[in-house]
Amino acid sequence: MTETVLASATREIAIGFDRPFCVIGERINPTGRKKLAEEMRNGDYSTVERDALAQVQAGAIMLDVNAGIPLADEPRILAETIRLVQSLVDVPLSIDSSIIDALEAGLAAYQGRPLVNSVTGEDESLERVLPLVKKYDCAVVAISNDETGISEDPDVRFEVARKIVNRAQDHGIKPADVVVDPLVMPIGAMGTAGRQVFHLLRRLKDELKVNSTCGASNVSFGLPNRRALNGHFLSMAASAGLTSAIMNPLHAEDMTAIMAANVLNGVDRDCRAWVRAFREPAPVAIDGAGGSEADQRRRDRENRRRRRSA
Amino acid sequence: MTETVLASATREIAIGFDRPFCVIGERINPTGRKKLAEEMRNGDYSTVERDALAQVQAGAIMLDVNAGIPLADEPRILAETIRLVQSLVDVPLSIDSSIIDALEAGLAAYQGRPLVNSVTGEDESLERVLPLVKKYDCAVVAISNDETGISEDPDVRFEVARKIVNRAQDHGIKPADVVVDPLVMPIGAMGTAGRQVFHLLRRLKDELKVNSTCGASNVSFGLPNRRALNGHFLSMAASAGLTSAIMNPLHAEDMTAIMAANVLNGVDRDCRAWVRAFREPAPVAIDGAGGSEADQRRRDRENRRRRRSA
Repeated sequence: MTETVLASATREIAIGFDRPFCVIGERINPTGRKKLAEEMRNGDYSTVERDALAQVQAGAIMLDVNAGIPLADEPRILAETIRLVQSLVDVPLSIDSSIIDALEAGLAAYQGRPLVNSVTGEDESLERVLPLVKKYDCAVVAISNDETGISEDPDVRFEVARKIVNRAQDHGIKPADVVVDPLVMPIGAMGTAGRQVFHLLRRLKDELKVNSTCGASNVSFGLPNRRALNGHFLSMAASAGLTSAIMNPLHAEDMTAIMAANVLNGVDRDCRAWVRAFREPAPVAIDGAGGSEADQRRRDRENRRRRRSA
Repeated sequence: MTETVLASATREIAIGFDRPFCVIGERINPTGRKKLAEEMRNGDYSTVERDALAQVQAGAIMLDVNAGIPLADEPRILAETIRLVQSLVDVPLSIDSSIIDALEAGLAAYQGRPLVNSVTGEDESLERVLPLVKKYDCAVVAISNDETGISEDPDVRFEVARKIVNRAQDHGIKPADVVVDPLVMPIGAMGTAGRQVFHLLRRLKDELKVNSTCGASNVSFGLPNRRALNGHFLSMAASAGLTSAIMNPLHAEDMTAIMAANVLNGVDRDCRAWVRAFREPAPVAIDGAGGSEADQRRRDRENRRRRRSA
């Protein structure tokens, strides 16, 4: 079966259909986080440190690292952030930028085998990003849009994904090193968004046999009780073939969804992770996804507070 | 597309792939409910009344009615229960018995077009139940086991389902009137139980093109945090093609799962049911699946209490 192998300096993981779902922590990203953007611009990485540690403690198997700050020196900041995060945690990273110089600086700074986030089906993107992926022998997220935009037809998006996989092969990159993002639209705006993605995920698994990832929270944009909807989107998508997601591991409902999907997809051996998370009387490492009754009550309070303010 | 049409005296519903998921309330069943069994045996239907009203209020689209009480006059009690329930609520019923005389008494008492629960792939069951289904022009739940028991191979279970559909056609019953139960095993005992069922549900939808139902709570038997696991099982199964389930509509997590699956499968038009359940400030009819903040807090307390006592 297809496995995308990624590594830090000391630890190797694999994304695959027979593996537990790969949770990629999304927090280290200044987009929409004004305070974090200011800090990173000024060389203050204290929030980055906390986010790195908290996400791994909460069960992230990888971390996404983005330093997209307007008018800042993104290549330098991305490289510094990567060095710092790699000094703190041993999970592999996803190097996230739309700027080719930033990706290259991040790749040069990285120890191990990272995931490059991302390439699209646009020719310019393919011809700039794929040579880097080959040069650094790493894996890449392939976004299923091209010059014509994002098609509402999942079969058109499938063809874009196929084009990227083929072009990657032309550059000497194996299909197993291409992780396709099927693009998740807000279901409040497009009622077929869920069906589209599930259909596309099944084709990616059955026909193209590639791993997949997505930003899951987009699906619930504009709707109430987003956490519950996101959680069920994740488990349903995992059932359709999604093998990783860029998500917030501090959200208890999302992590419960992932753990349930692992049990029900038969990749949580003897349901060990599930039982550990929900049965242990003592607090466990997975904050927000298990632990003691006191933890549970605290999370319930927190969830209620969030629901009220949603 | 396949639609299984069912009716009470005054109301028609359809189970189908383009319809909201059909929640069949499971509560009116004395199995494992000693007090209810005693009451029903003595002609006291007060609990049945409460269960009928509460389940419909909570969002049940149908109700299952079972009167399986050891050594009792099941045909008489089942017929009485059906008459009573039909006098209280207008949803169609599933008439649930393993005793042919009870099924016949229930069918004779019923007003409308019910679901008969159930027939198996065993020849004796087929030859006794299918003529009744034909005589009363109703629909039937087909359990995918036969004389050899329940196969662990979902493709064998598929062939049993196909055999029942074919035999039903021999009796003049349309495939659309056969609702297959793929049989859900406890995942704690068999790690492949989830994958098996999802695979079978996809084949039932894509190849046999029949509706499906199941008793969902079995999947989590013996595991902690059963509610969360059952909820994600339901949404994942709905994504794979499950169109109805015999379940407890008073369980908030299960109903949230069903509502999320309806949104994500594109069968909750404009997300109206979701928004109504989770945004309305005033209490709504769907107890346990939405409502005011006070309702939400009450449900949270209740869920915590249940989790602690689980």
